[in-house]
Amino acid sequence: MTTPDFPQVEYEERLERVQAAMHAARVDALFFTSEAEVHYFSGFRTLFWLSPTRPWFLIVPKRGKPIAVIPEIGAALMHETWIDDIRTWNSPDPVDDGNSLLASLLTGYPRVGAMMGRETSLRMPLADFEALRRRLSACEFVDVTAMVQKLRMVKSPDEIAKIKSICAIASRSFEAAPALFSAGQSLKEVFRSFRISLLENGADDVPYLVGGAGQGGYSGVISPPTERPLMDGDILMLDTGATLGGYYCDFDRNFAIGHAPVASRKAYSTLSRATDAALAIARPGVRCSELFRVMAGEIGAGGSDTAGVGRFGHGLGMQLTEPPSLAPFDDTILAAGMVITLEPGIEVAEGRMMVQEENIVIRDGAPELLSWRAPAELPVIGAAS
Amino acid sequence: MTTPDFPQVEYEERLERVQAAMHAARVDALFFTSEAEVHYFSGFRTLFWLSPTRPWFLIVPKRGKPIAVIPEIGAALMHETWIDDIRTWNSPDPVDDGNSLLASLLTGYPRVGAMMGRETSLRMPLADFEALRRRLSACEFVDVTAMVQKLRMVKSPDEIAKIKSICAIASRSFEAAPALFSAGQSLKEVFRSFRISLLENGADDVPYLVGGAGQGGYSGVISPPTERPLMDGDILMLDTGATLGGYYCDFDRNFAIGHAPVASRKAYSTLSRATDAALAIARPGVRCSELFRVMAGEIGAGGSDTAGVGRFGHGLGMQLTEPPSLAPFDDTILAAGMVITLEPGIEVAEGRMMVQEENIVIRDGAPELLSWRAPAELPVIGAAS
Repeated sequence: MTTPDFPQVEYEERLERVQAAMHAARVDALFFTSEAEVHYFSGFRTLFWLSPTRPWFLIVPKRGKPIAVIPEIGAALMHETWIDDIRTWNSPDPVDDGNSLLASLLTGYPRVGAMMGRETSLRMPLADFEALRRRLSACEFVDVTAMVQKLRMVKSPDEIAKIKSICAIASRSFEAAPALFSAGQSLKEVFRSFRISLLENGADDVPYLVGGAGQGGYSGVISPPTERPLMDGDILMLDTGATLGGYYCDFDRNFAIGHAPVASRKAYSTLSRATDAALAIARPGVRCSELFRVMAGEIGAGGSDTAGVGRFGHGLGMQLTEPPSLAPFDDTILAAGMVITLEPGIEVAEGRMMVQEENIVIRDGAPELLSWRAPAELPVIGAAS
Repeated sequence: MTTPDFPQVEYEERLERVQAAMHAARVDALFFTSEAEVHYFSGFRTLFWLSPTRPWFLIVPKRGKPIAVIPEIGAALMHETWIDDIRTWNSPDPVDDGNSLLASLLTGYPRVGAMMGRETSLRMPLADFEALRRRLSACEFVDVTAMVQKLRMVKSPDEIAKIKSICAIASRSFEAAPALFSAGQSLKEVFRSFRISLLENGADDVPYLVGGAGQGGYSGVISPPTERPLMDGDILMLDTGATLGGYYCDFDRNFAIGHAPVASRKAYSTLSRATDAALAIARPGVRCSELFRVMAGEIGAGGSDTAGVGRFGHGLGMQLTEPPSLAPFDDTILAAGMVITLEPGIEVAEGRMMVQEENIVIRDGAPELLSWRAPAELPVIGAAS
């Protein structure tokens, strides 16, 4: 009944690519516990991951299709994906929550790949994982984080189309900001009307919405809303990760309330120039660290990140943030099909910052903007007329 | 600027209770990596956990206040909580993403408690955790899952008030169902209008909304919506986890479209009787397994769970599902202040099921319904007049 998000060939290609990488790395099976990887290779999409009660597993053997090892409650939904081999147990089980099933399926694979590195979690009880490793003492567990992340960084045309659609939805809602937001409104009201606008414009869901408002800038970029009313001279920033068909947008917009203080206008223009500079060099073959440096150069902070965010952008797709990082340490080479955010930040004054974010896809030649580019000048809402 | 969700005394009491439990179990420090525990003991609330890039840590020593060990990007928000001791690093860091900071802070605690058991995850890279354990070879890591879960199961009056408020919001939206849903509408439209209704009624967010519709029943209870239109004879079920101030409701409602098939009406009444039976015995001192058995008895499936959900309810609070489980294996003894769901399920026909869910708080005497009780008879939407 549930329509798959993509034609089957999309999943076949993902499998083919990862099995080629497994062959090269002499890995016999992949063992996944986390939502993004189970979703990516099976097409299984549910909000039920929010419940921490039950573990979910996917095994990708070096030959043949993936095997789902999941609680019975998910069987009907998994049967609607392209996966044929679905092993279930009645979960929750206090003694054996899928572990003996896993052990029987993984036995015989000498080298089992698992996600152990940066930006990963172990989405099962640690004690169960350690018990599984003891049962599979003949198997060597190896870290395949880099292999899987590298593969997922490059998006297919179908994936890019989904991200472009949700970026357009959020762009339309941001364009409606002058009608949605006004001085005197509390931040909670601002967030509520923006969420509703995103849904009305076609978003499936708004898993991520953060922001802030303050005189001339804001104190942080990950806060929930407060009851504080918008005031003249405030800079309001909203940053949203809305979703469509399981894919995220992730960008923000800034608005001055009533009037735009000079320092804020200046900071905004500096961030726009930093984005311009990144757009000018974002081509296949360029390193992520170079994108960071060219943005930091425009911001003029001696090449450092003064806003404390740790990077000036990142990958984007089935997760709000994905590798790579636009950071001095990340020498990932851009390739056509990578979807990334450009997110320079600047400290306007002690404890006051501004950030600006766009979503782009790397193309042969100039990159394509997926978010509709922010206005060149800091927009003012509700100026006295 | 961000208003704390509770007065400081709420967090002081949580700390006092956990430190008493630590003393009894001879645990010298707790080490948390996951959103719920960091949130519970610090009051730090942000949607930024959706980004898997950065790890976040909280250390609870056996004496004194918790210590936050977090990426610099979260410092401003953490400073608005009751936590004083906030250690930050510039994350993401490809070599040392908080690990040396953690090691220096945990050194000297002989026994460190961590969440390793059922319903937990390790929300940091496994390789980093293993490196940390090697650095802290003098520390013994012990599992404190049961200790922390037991403590969190009993909600404070302030927590119950938040859950009651979000339950009332969702109840109002479910009452508006006849105005929101109609035959011919796609499930996607149904979900969209229900999300908007929840927000308009005051929900902060709708992280969880699943459901289904089918002739006489539905095939699963964790699915996202499809383009399939509602048809006469369908049973529509929506199950929502909306939030307010960081706390969830979690309940569903069933609606017959056009007319209610006899078998569906009968199944619905059976589920209502099962809920009645659970409400009649849900008192302090009763075991969760007894609640399961009394519901299974009404359903008449020889005391088993035919819908494949694995249990007939669970705890509820800062997470959509929390311990305990209303299941044969869970002998947790109910206590006043526990908030749980009653969620009996039944197989109506091969591959067709129905579930019914209420949210209650255990009181001295009869439990208090937090969700507004579902109608006694299966409600019909859009009957021919």
